[in-house]
Amino acid sequence: MFISLVIQHRHVHLSKADLRQLFGDEKNLHIETTLGHRGQVLYKETVTISGRKGEIESVRILGPTRSKTQVEISVSDAVLLGARVPVRHSGDLKRAGSCKLISDSASLRASSSVIIPARHLHCNDRIAKKLHLKNQEVVSLQHADRSDVILSHVFVRIHPTFALELHLTEDEAAVHWLSTGDLFSLC
Amino acid sequence: MFISLVIQHRHVHLSKADLRQLFGDEKNLHIETTLGHRGQVLYKETVTISGRKGEIESVRILGPTRSKTQVEISVSDAVLLGARVPVRHSGDLKRAGSCKLISDSASLRASSSVIIPARHLHCNDRIAKKLHLKNQEVVSLQHADRSDVILSHVFVRIHPTFALELHLTEDEAAVHWLSTGDLFSLC
Repeated sequence: MFISLVIQHRHVHLSKADLRQLFGDEKNLHIETTLGHRGQVLYKETVTISGRKGEIESVRILGPTRSKTQVEISVSDAVLLGARVPVRHSGDLKRAGSCKLISDSASLRASSSVIIPARHLHCNDRIAKKLHLKNQEVVSLQHADRSDVILSHVFVRIHPTFALELHLTEDEAAVHWLSTGDLFSLC
Repeated sequence: MFISLVIQHRHVHLSKADLRQLFGDEKNLHIETTLGHRGQVLYKETVTISGRKGEIESVRILGPTRSKTQVEISVSDAVLLGARVPVRHSGDLKRAGSCKLISDSASLRASSSVIIPARHLHCNDRIAKKLHLKNQEVVSLQHADRSDVILSHVFVRIHPTFALELHLTEDEAAVHWLSTGDLFSLC
């Protein structure tokens, strides 16, 4: 079974409180499209991420809200912002980077919120069983057409709502010249 | 007829002289894969792009060589490098940005070489006739699934060797949350 790559653009998950501060109310955000994982949406509205050295405009917000605001960027975005940002699994915000988030009407300091998401693979329980994958396991993947492209240290995340997708940041994709839709198999 | 999006990673086209300076000889570069446009290849080897404020490692080189070295990056890459980089059509290097290119064994100053490629659409003559497209025309494109995503100011480039592809930088793709393979039609 092949696993399809989805390159992750920089994006923000907002907590309910931060969403209210930036946009007043959830009703002021408009859904543009749904995403691969069940229940996840992409909003039309965007924020600016501001750091010590630079800022990045027009960054998309994913819904629904989370318990903590989480900003996911690539290594080169972190350099641009001048923020010290660790590579982390989603949800692990220990010593995460900080930034300012700016909407059209408000701004806030998002402390310990910025991470570079570690490369990972999403999978639902049924497919995981078929592929003999365990949650939080670390695997290696080989590109289906370019056998010399091997990605090691891919973290496995299993949840009933997950689509079978390999997620990389734009920087990781650029290094190997990969595109969304590229296929991989387990080594 | 739908036009498929290809998100362009940052990359470098080298002149013969610059290739020799960085890698000694063309034979020292190894082809990883061919690209959509006939005759174009992606090399395994990479360079570092260095600017006044920062540098970007592991940037891919496309072949064959060109008459002038051309470095194509996104807006956020330009901010990271601290380089003043204009949006330009490929081949137009008037007042283009400058950077240093570094290989494992050598480096050089690439003056007037760095551009942010203007969004464009590649097409061969046969398809252009079918779509009533003229070379260097400017068109608007609408996303096939998300009708509110409309890209204006798309520059048309026609050549017998071109695949029918819409090219955007990673930054432009991130703003609209687009993926390689997304389909567009002419407005």
